[in-house]
Amino acid sequence: MKKYKVAILGATGAVGQEMIKILEERNFPIQELRLLASPKSAGRLMKFKGEQIPIQAADKQAFDGCDIVLGAAENDIAKKYAQDIVRAQAVFIDNSSAFRLNKNVPLVIPEVNPQDVFQHQGIIANPNCSTIIALTAVHSIHQLSPIKKMIVSTYQAVSGAGVNGIDELEKQNKAILEHTPIIPQTFPYQIAYNLIPQIGDFYENGYTSEEMKMQNEGRRILHAEDLLVSCTCVRVPILRSHSISIMLETESPLELSAVKNGIQHASGCKYMDDPENKIYPMPLDTTNQDLVYVGRIRKDLTNDHGIVLWCCGDQIRKGAATNAVQIAEVLIQDHN
Amino acid sequence: MKKYKVAILGATGAVGQEMIKILEERNFPIQELRLLASPKSAGRLMKFKGEQIPIQAADKQAFDGCDIVLGAAENDIAKKYAQDIVRAQAVFIDNSSAFRLNKNVPLVIPEVNPQDVFQHQGIIANPNCSTIIALTAVHSIHQLSPIKKMIVSTYQAVSGAGVNGIDELEKQNKAILEHTPIIPQTFPYQIAYNLIPQIGDFYENGYTSEEMKMQNEGRRILHAEDLLVSCTCVRVPILRSHSISIMLETESPLELSAVKNGIQHASGCKYMDDPENKIYPMPLDTTNQDLVYVGRIRKDLTNDHGIVLWCCGDQIRKGAATNAVQIAEVLIQDHN
Repeated sequence: MKKYKVAILGATGAVGQEMIKILEERNFPIQELRLLASPKSAGRLMKFKGEQIPIQAADKQAFDGCDIVLGAAENDIAKKYAQDIVRAQAVFIDNSSAFRLNKNVPLVIPEVNPQDVFQHQGIIANPNCSTIIALTAVHSIHQLSPIKKMIVSTYQAVSGAGVNGIDELEKQNKAILEHTPIIPQTFPYQIAYNLIPQIGDFYENGYTSEEMKMQNEGRRILHAEDLLVSCTCVRVPILRSHSISIMLETESPLELSAVKNGIQHASGCKYMDDPENKIYPMPLDTTNQDLVYVGRIRKDLTNDHGIVLWCCGDQIRKGAATNAVQIAEVLIQDHN
Repeated sequence: MKKYKVAILGATGAVGQEMIKILEERNFPIQELRLLASPKSAGRLMKFKGEQIPIQAADKQAFDGCDIVLGAAENDIAKKYAQDIVRAQAVFIDNSSAFRLNKNVPLVIPEVNPQDVFQHQGIIANPNCSTIIALTAVHSIHQLSPIKKMIVSTYQAVSGAGVNGIDELEKQNKAILEHTPIIPQTFPYQIAYNLIPQIGDFYENGYTSEEMKMQNEGRRILHAEDLLVSCTCVRVPILRSHSISIMLETESPLELSAVKNGIQHASGCKYMDDPENKIYPMPLDTTNQDLVYVGRIRKDLTNDHGIVLWCCGDQIRKGAATNAVQIAEVLIQDHN
């Protein structure tokens, strides 16, 4: 079996750390793992399969000889190094939003559109975390009848803001118990015991950048150019799983039993829909695993083409790190 | 000015305690305040306008001589005493859901349908807390053009389960910090760092009793028999303000500026919609006051008859106690 030289760009962040864990868990065929981060982390050691690997400062030459680079850095870093990665003839699987709407860059959820991987020209983009979780939940419905519209409200964990987001919520909960002052740093307002209905910056239409991703990225992933999505993204005091309330409208009306059956058999999904027995998706249950839990599946009461459901998934794993590693797995399929 | 003999049935619960506070704050014209609760609380003293009032055990004679009874008890208690209250010729303003869908019982949000108060035959019902907050937010839109459909996702505070709900969240947060075990009592699962997509019991259509209230009660309050609502109700780890994400469809398409202008001038609302300056409703800000904060107002991207918005309100106050006292204020208008 061929083994690959893999680099992680941004190895010290929440997503980068998780990528290391997932490459190990899934036993990705690795010949060499290169951990790249900012110069201030250089020399620090991180563990992979029992080995201690020193972090290297990312620079233009850092990708030479690599087969695959997993990007876990912000947009500016992704843009800064993308051409160097391509020049090194590595494939850049990037978790930032820098290239997601670039027509030459496939945007892939392996359970939904794996075939798009092979259209790449050196860069493959990993979708937004809420988009991954929502579309993994509903892709089997789209196969029954094309999804035309979605009304979405998210309940997004603080891990979406990285390690600092998790630290901030835990510190604020401690401060409340100890009656010490709270000074928000990562989020614009206190997040403990609060909700913040802003993720990303605002566009002129009143939606945030995060909210528009569900439509813009959803169109590319589902190959549905006319998909319409109205999304409201809300930060909630939850550590690391995103939950999403979805109403979707399909081209033809669907039997509820067919929808449920589709989700039961959908790859990437765990069917959690037995409300009488209090079985439904909850963010705590989905933490630290890779499936999107789907439940509360019912007919929309306002529209006979509508289905309403609720799903949860680990934001750092399926929403980011796992999805990127799965893309790498699709990419190397032909070679093994 | 005429003064009234007022009783609170269920005075020791979260809503009952708040009713005492609000009667005092709003200087409701009270001749006598009678505090009624279960026998186990009888004799305990509660403060009203500097006076210590002893709690009396509720019984069939406890309402004799009362003008108004504010109900802050569960359905079974409300049903048990309703006829005694009516026989005593008091008006029963009941916060339980026991009588809300009874055609002879007006269901009232004073900012929306105050005139319905005067149709009462001894009982007036206070709507569900999320229904009050959502409809207070959107009633001005309904005046511009009738609301036909709503897709709603709620973010409901633990106070919806009363004092025990608040205690449970605070205890669980403490247990997490102290690494002690969590044993859920009030909620079916851990609520700290979690979301529970069930409030109430499930109907055959897959919706919960709480979720159906928005449609069933909304039709009566808005006098809109054909109103269709698909609601998803979710318990979130927030202390006492509910937040609600709403997409609504009106009969005619509306200009966004007209919608915003309507909400700016709507009674019961505080317009909090300046996203560029990070001004939007948040549950922490709405705690311990009576207005429903409304913001994130924008056009639905899936439907040109649609409006999307976000609102928050204090569940114990406007969602329950304040609304009941406001109904009492409407009721006595003619007599003062």
